[in-house]
Amino acid sequence: MSKAKLVILDCWVSPFCMRVKIALNEKGLEYEAQAEDLFGGKSELLLSSNPIYKKVPVFLHDGKPLCESTIIVNYIDETWSSLPLLPPCSYGRAQARFWADFIDKKVFDACGNIWRSKGEVPVEAKKEFIEILKQLEEALGDKDYFIGTTFGFVDIILIPLTSWFFAVEKIGGLTVEAECPKLSNWMKRCLQRESVAKVVPPPEKVYEFVLMFRKMLGID
Amino acid sequence: MSKAKLVILDCWVSPFCMRVKIALNEKGLEYEAQAEDLFGGKSELLLSSNPIYKKVPVFLHDGKPLCESTIIVNYIDETWSSLPLLPPCSYGRAQARFWADFIDKKVFDACGNIWRSKGEVPVEAKKEFIEILKQLEEALGDKDYFIGTTFGFVDIILIPLTSWFFAVEKIGGLTVEAECPKLSNWMKRCLQRESVAKVVPPPEKVYEFVLMFRKMLGID
Repeated sequence: MSKAKLVILDCWVSPFCMRVKIALNEKGLEYEAQAEDLFGGKSELLLSSNPIYKKVPVFLHDGKPLCESTIIVNYIDETWSSLPLLPPCSYGRAQARFWADFIDKKVFDACGNIWRSKGEVPVEAKKEFIEILKQLEEALGDKDYFIGTTFGFVDIILIPLTSWFFAVEKIGGLTVEAECPKLSNWMKRCLQRESVAKVVPPPEKVYEFVLMFRKMLGID
Repeated sequence: MSKAKLVILDCWVSPFCMRVKIALNEKGLEYEAQAEDLFGGKSELLLSSNPIYKKVPVFLHDGKPLCESTIIVNYIDETWSSLPLLPPCSYGRAQARFWADFIDKKVFDACGNIWRSKGEVPVEAKKEFIEILKQLEEALGDKDYFIGTTFGFVDIILIPLTSWFFAVEKIGGLTVEAECPKLSNWMKRCLQRESVAKVVPPPEKVYEFVLMFRKMLGID
């Protein structure tokens, strides 16, 4: 196979873009990250490659576009199948997809219900956020990673979202570590991986972005 | 492989249960459908097999539970891999998963915004429903089925939802066929398949259920 041209239409603070970059790093693939200016106007390439959602990330494999981060990570795993991210058996894969889907349905919105809130953060929003993390902590159990013994699909789907937790903690007045110690240890474990460390921004930088974004949205 | 014991915790009117049954029919697999009484109290087996969502369908493969219909259909396809439902190449599979995900995110909720409405159905809700169908119609294009030339994954994800369209049409005062003729032809084509015809209930029966359900919810 001749060397593929891999491009990601990217935004540094998007957890969904981080997923794709971590997956590519795990596979040892070189790629070009083209930063999109999401506030100044989206590129023609972004609009034409993702006409349905018009959102990053878009992954271009030799020019062929793919959208939606979880689907892209799945695609990367199936296309470059050495060092697999998904388990070898179909039951394990279904379990991994179940938790990835759970994360997609719940975590980002639960974060948003806290960091987007005007005035005091509703108790319900904080309770829901912690409840979701506790469900994830239970799924993790005493394992090092979500499915099996190695860093894989579910870890890639979740770890980027945790870069927003510091902002959620500051704005919501809560501490993930106090509520979910095992999940916090899993976070630390993942963040030590090179594939993750070089992609996930420092939480303080995300917090600064969130504060700026709140101003832009007229919340503060 | 000895014959597997396949059970689905089922509800006749759930489009999500229909998906699983159609996939099993396409694979020529025998299964037992155990009807859940969703109003009279869920079974212990349902609650213990799907502790996160407590919803049908649950698919039990030799007792091992799987949840979330799109994930189950994917699992069925990967486990019984002859007569594949997903395309052979990873790009085709990613496209199929993109549209399945789009359907999951949009169609059922858009239907609900119409059939659950109190008093006159908001124009916006009708407009959104039709817009989603038009996006799907564009993805279908002039093909017989969504991805490729044979009935497959995306068709299985969408066709059960169309059994609720008659109720949506009656309550919303709209006609899918007038708005989306190609999609309507695709619906007719799919409903002629044996795997689909023996699973999808008559639209009038779904409409009756919806009217009864509206009463239960205090809408009428």
